[in-house]
Amino acid sequence: MTALPVVVPVNAALEPQLRACLDAKAKPPGSLGRIEDLAVRIGLIQNRLDPRIARTDLYVFAGDHGLTNEGVSAYPSSVTAAMVELFLSGRSSVSAFAKATGVRVRVVDAGVDADLPEHTKMISAKIRRGARNAARASALTQDEVLAAIAKGGEIARAAAEDGADVIALGEMGIGNSSSAALIMHRLAPAALDDCVGQGTGHDAEGMARKRAGIVRAALRSDASAPLAVLAEFGGCEIAMMVGAVLGAAAARRVVLIDGFISTAAALAAVRLVPAALDYCVFAHGSAERGHPLMLRALGVQPLLDLDLRLGEGTGAALAAPLLVAAANLLTEVADLADVLAGPG
Amino acid sequence: MTALPVVVPVNAALEPQLRACLDAKAKPPGSLGRIEDLAVRIGLIQNRLDPRIARTDLYVFAGDHGLTNEGVSAYPSSVTAAMVELFLSGRSSVSAFAKATGVRVRVVDAGVDADLPEHTKMISAKIRRGARNAARASALTQDEVLAAIAKGGEIARAAAEDGADVIALGEMGIGNSSSAALIMHRLAPAALDDCVGQGTGHDAEGMARKRAGIVRAALRSDASAPLAVLAEFGGCEIAMMVGAVLGAAAARRVVLIDGFISTAAALAAVRLVPAALDYCVFAHGSAERGHPLMLRALGVQPLLDLDLRLGEGTGAALAAPLLVAAANLLTEVADLADVLAGPG
Repeated sequence: MTALPVVVPVNAALEPQLRACLDAKAKPPGSLGRIEDLAVRIGLIQNRLDPRIARTDLYVFAGDHGLTNEGVSAYPSSVTAAMVELFLSGRSSVSAFAKATGVRVRVVDAGVDADLPEHTKMISAKIRRGARNAARASALTQDEVLAAIAKGGEIARAAAEDGADVIALGEMGIGNSSSAALIMHRLAPAALDDCVGQGTGHDAEGMARKRAGIVRAALRSDASAPLAVLAEFGGCEIAMMVGAVLGAAAARRVVLIDGFISTAAALAAVRLVPAALDYCVFAHGSAERGHPLMLRALGVQPLLDLDLRLGEGTGAALAAPLLVAAANLLTEVADLADVLAGPG
Repeated sequence: MTALPVVVPVNAALEPQLRACLDAKAKPPGSLGRIEDLAVRIGLIQNRLDPRIARTDLYVFAGDHGLTNEGVSAYPSSVTAAMVELFLSGRSSVSAFAKATGVRVRVVDAGVDADLPEHTKMISAKIRRGARNAARASALTQDEVLAAIAKGGEIARAAAEDGADVIALGEMGIGNSSSAALIMHRLAPAALDDCVGQGTGHDAEGMARKRAGIVRAALRSDASAPLAVLAEFGGCEIAMMVGAVLGAAAARRVVLIDGFISTAAALAAVRLVPAALDYCVFAHGSAERGHPLMLRALGVQPLLDLDLRLGEGTGAALAAPLLVAAANLLTEVADLADVLAGPG
C-alpha cells in the first residue's frame, strides 16, 4: 500500500498553558465558552501559544456518481459540471458566503463526468469521469482511491506551503449524499437507515428510490476497512478529500470540515489515521439526517447550527471568521493584570 | 411624555417575493436554512429584494450600577472604566472579535462612574455617574430614562445617516446582569429566580449576595410598565440601548442584539414599541441562565450558540458576517434557470 501522510498528534501538554493564557485575559475565565475551546484547538494544531489565522482557503471537490443511475438524486449528474462553472464565475452560494467572510475559494475537478475547460481557480485532478455505479460494481479501484488520496494530500500541502492557515473542505457532486451515507454506515459504523437522508431534497417516492439504490450497493459488498469502503462506495471527490484532510493535518494546518459529505471524508481519514482528528474543526451541524450521529461517532461538536443542507462548503465559509476570532483572542487581548495595573 | 421614535412595521407582503427570489436561486429550495430566513428578515427591514450589508457598527454602551453596593457583582465598579479604556485601545475581547469580522467598534459613555478622557472612538453621553442603588432607591429618574432613550436614538440615527447598514448593540457595566434580570422579571415577565444567573461569575456565596440584592430591589417597587421598570431597575447604558433599538428601527436599519443584557434592552424597547421587534436580529444564545427564557418571551431564536457569557458585544461581532452572507445570497447568487440555460 502507498504510504499515507505521517500525522503527528498534537502536543496535549500545551493545553494547560493555552488555558492559562486564556484565563489570564481581561475577562472572566471561561466566559467566551466554545471560542476559548476553539482557541485551544488552534494553538494545539499550530503548536504555539500565539497562533495566527491570516488566510483560509476553501477547496470545493467536485465529482460525479454512477449511483445516480439508480435514481438516488433528484438532479441529473450534469448539474455537477454546471455548478462547477457557477463556482468559477463567483455566482454560487458558497462564493457569496466566502465573499462575506474573506475566504478564498478554489474548485478541484476530482471526477466530474464532463470535460471542463481550464480555469485559474480550478485544479484539474480528474481521477476518472465519475465513480462507477456502486449498486452494480466497485465505485473505484484501489488504485483510483490511492491516486485520489495522494492528489488530495498534494493539494493540501501546496495550499499550506502557499500560506493557507486553514484548509477548508467542501464538495459538489450529484449523488454524493448516497455515497457518504454508505461510508458512514460502514465506518461510523451505524445502521443504514440512520445514514440516509433527504440530501438535496426528495419527495417520498424519490426517497424510496434513494434508499433502494443505497441498499443494493450495501448488499453488493460487505467492505468495512476504510480503503475498501472508499473503493466500494466512495466517489473521486470524497476520496480526494480524505487525502486533503491527511495532507493538511500532516502540514499542521487547521482542517475546516463542512457538512455531511465532508464529514464522511473526515471520518474515513480518521479511521485511516486517527491522529488526523486533532486537526479537524467541524463547521456546522447539517440538517441532513445522518450528520448528528456521524459527528457523535467522531466525538465532536460543530460550531454552527443553522439548518444548512447544501454542501459546497457553505457552512465552512460561514464558520471561518470564528477561527480568526479565536486566534485573535490569544494574540490581541490584554491580560487582566495589565488592565488592573493601569496605564502608569 | 417625550415622543418615542415612530417605527413602521415591515411590509410583510414582501416576504413571499423574497422567498420566491431565494427559491429561484441555483440551490435546492430551503437548503440554506436559517440563512434564508435571515435574508428574508434583512430584505423586509430594508424593504427591498436586493438588500445590502456593507457596514456594521457596534456600539458598546457603558454604565455603572449603584446596586453593586449590595455585592451583586464579583468585580468592583471601577472595572467598567478600565474596560472602556481597553475597548478604546483595541485590546479587549470584542475588539479582537470585531477585527476578525470587519465590524467597527465605538464606545458610548452612557453612565460610567468615572471622568473619562475624550477619545475619537468614544461618544460622551453620560446621563449620570452610575445609576443609583436600585435596592434602596429608583435607579434613574423618569427624566434620566427619557434623556437616555433620546440620546440612544440620536446615536443610532447618526450611525444610519453615516452609512451603517447594521447597528449592533453591546454593553459593559459591572452589575448590569442584575439590572437586566429585574427588567426581564417585570417585562418578560418571568419568575425572578428564572432571571438571575451567574453573570460574569460567582461562587455560591456570591450568588446568594446577588440574589439578595436583586430581591431587595424587586421588593422596593412593583413597577411593571416599561419606562417605570427602566427607572426603578435600569441602568443608563440599558436605557440608552433601548433608545438605540428604537432609533435604528425607525431608520429601518438591522439591529443586531448581543446577549442577556442587550436582549433586556431589546425587550424593553419592544414592550414600548412592538414594531421594533421586526428590526431586531438576535446574535447568540448566552450561557447566562435567563437568556433562553427571555428569547422565548420575545418569540425569537438566536443565530449562534457558543456558550458565551461575556457581553461587550462579543456575540454580535461574531454573528455580523452571517448577515453579510445572507444579503449576498439574495444579490450575488445566480438563478437556477440561468444555470440550466447554460452560457449560450
